[in-house]
Amino acid sequence: MTQVLVVAATHGNERNAPWLLDQWRAQPALLRSHGLPLQLEIGNPAAHAQNRRYIDRDLNRCFAPALLQDPARQELEVQRARQVLGRYGPGGERACAVAVDLHSTTSAMGNSLVVYGRRPADLALAAGIQARLGLPVYLHEADAAQTGFLVERWPCGLVIEVGPVPQGLLSAAIARQTQLALEAALDTLAQAAADRLVLPRGLVVHAHRGSLDLPRQPDGTPAATVHPALQGRDWWPLRAGQPLFSRADGSTQALAAADLADSEARWPVFINEAAYGEKGIALSLTRREVLAAGEAWRQALVALMQAAPA
Amino acid sequence: MTQVLVVAATHGNERNAPWLLDQWRAQPALLRSHGLPLQLEIGNPAAHAQNRRYIDRDLNRCFAPALLQDPARQELEVQRARQVLGRYGPGGERACAVAVDLHSTTSAMGNSLVVYGRRPADLALAAGIQARLGLPVYLHEADAAQTGFLVERWPCGLVIEVGPVPQGLLSAAIARQTQLALEAALDTLAQAAADRLVLPRGLVVHAHRGSLDLPRQPDGTPAATVHPALQGRDWWPLRAGQPLFSRADGSTQALAAADLADSEARWPVFINEAAYGEKGIALSLTRREVLAAGEAWRQALVALMQAAPA
Repeated sequence: MTQVLVVAATHGNERNAPWLLDQWRAQPALLRSHGLPLQLEIGNPAAHAQNRRYIDRDLNRCFAPALLQDPARQELEVQRARQVLGRYGPGGERACAVAVDLHSTTSAMGNSLVVYGRRPADLALAAGIQARLGLPVYLHEADAAQTGFLVERWPCGLVIEVGPVPQGLLSAAIARQTQLALEAALDTLAQAAADRLVLPRGLVVHAHRGSLDLPRQPDGTPAATVHPALQGRDWWPLRAGQPLFSRADGSTQALAAADLADSEARWPVFINEAAYGEKGIALSLTRREVLAAGEAWRQALVALMQAAPA
Repeated sequence: MTQVLVVAATHGNERNAPWLLDQWRAQPALLRSHGLPLQLEIGNPAAHAQNRRYIDRDLNRCFAPALLQDPARQELEVQRARQVLGRYGPGGERACAVAVDLHSTTSAMGNSLVVYGRRPADLALAAGIQARLGLPVYLHEADAAQTGFLVERWPCGLVIEVGPVPQGLLSAAIARQTQLALEAALDTLAQAAADRLVLPRGLVVHAHRGSLDLPRQPDGTPAATVHPALQGRDWWPLRAGQPLFSRADGSTQALAAADLADSEARWPVFINEAAYGEKGIALSLTRREVLAAGEAWRQALVALMQAAPA
């Protein structure tokens, strides 16, 4: 159980990670894997071939157990989720203990991590990467509208999320950042496998507290855009009265107290991600927290990486 | 024949211009039309509904006469081209003398114009816009691989091309630039209609001389990306030996004399446009020229705008 699954093109129009996978397969020495056995996999080959995010439904919302177990659900991506899980999931023929899912975004997230919930091994991995590269962490939790993420079905896993980059586009800078984050993850995992992992005292996370949509017309089309002063300001805290949206007539809609789930949910992420329009998300709001990185985190990741292969 | 056709979403995943069209239809006073009668049209409604560039083939390569006249060609976009031309083209029920086609790009083109060939009325319109806003002009000509552009089928027309913006994304800044360029075009056309048009002495253009593709693997996938030092440098002249492409192993491919159609074809445009990967274009190379804006240009545009409606 010490293999690591690295997934690219879970969304078929995010082109940098699958391009890297092709390069690493052709020249394995290009990726510093720190001695870990890797499984490199294209998440959604059908969507990748068509340069579309997905064919029937978002693959990265298909990994909810109820959905996977419902025989009536036969969308292409649900079938693909079962296939990937059957092959690389716990108990699979090529079982992996950890899944790292490589994504890009049109939002100015920089080089960042997304962690789903507060599993100790995930937080240990994120802390190891943050200690190496200082990457910010979006802690996605308590969001009933967005569930079924790929990495949740592995004992440990997280998303590497890099932006801004348009959909469908290769970018040298985005590819480079993606590789650096993955190598930091693999370094952390290799240290855990050797029981040499040292974690920082704390992990800075931005915990999900809610999302805001664009103002919309009755027919559902946008009545406004993200305000130009907010565009690109992911991870910068919002101020009271700050303009959020701007209309074609020049008027703006400002941040109101009611927009915040709590007064500390002021850090926006995924501002104007192109694929989230259909999800009704113009940005998500987070609260900054520092989690104490206890010995339990370290032990959880070490135990996982030292377990005998299934 | 003095109506002006304004087309948005000729490419269905370019979202800013069709969003503006919706706003202008709801509140016509938002657009300074300078008294000109306008026809506002969504170029490719089917592709726009699916947020895809096109369904069967690129609509903005479907306006070649041989293609339009071939009864065997029944792709969705060829049929749509015939429909738009039948309605708004010369002799159409709502004939327009001028077509302005609103586009966006993932390249860092800024707010810019694309003119197809050297028709005097087009150059007069471009000169009027350049005099008002200073926009750079990509003069597309002598490119047998790329033909059949929409505006070529109207007596006068050009493309307003704004970037960088990801596909599928609303951007306040991109929408604002699009509107400013269109208003400058309408101001120029209104001045011509009133025979008050004053043109600058010269028009600076960047004339197409060729295109370069990414280095590719035998299977057609990219072997390299656009070099990070070239990304975003549209309109900046290339230097001898400048790195153009970078590979995953860190090696680069530099500009060679053989890359240039002539020694003056050093100004790159459309660097890393996401939709041009499938066309085999990583960037196009142009030569900067200053064209003398003669009285013939002015007269051509005035005659067109003063002609009686068909």
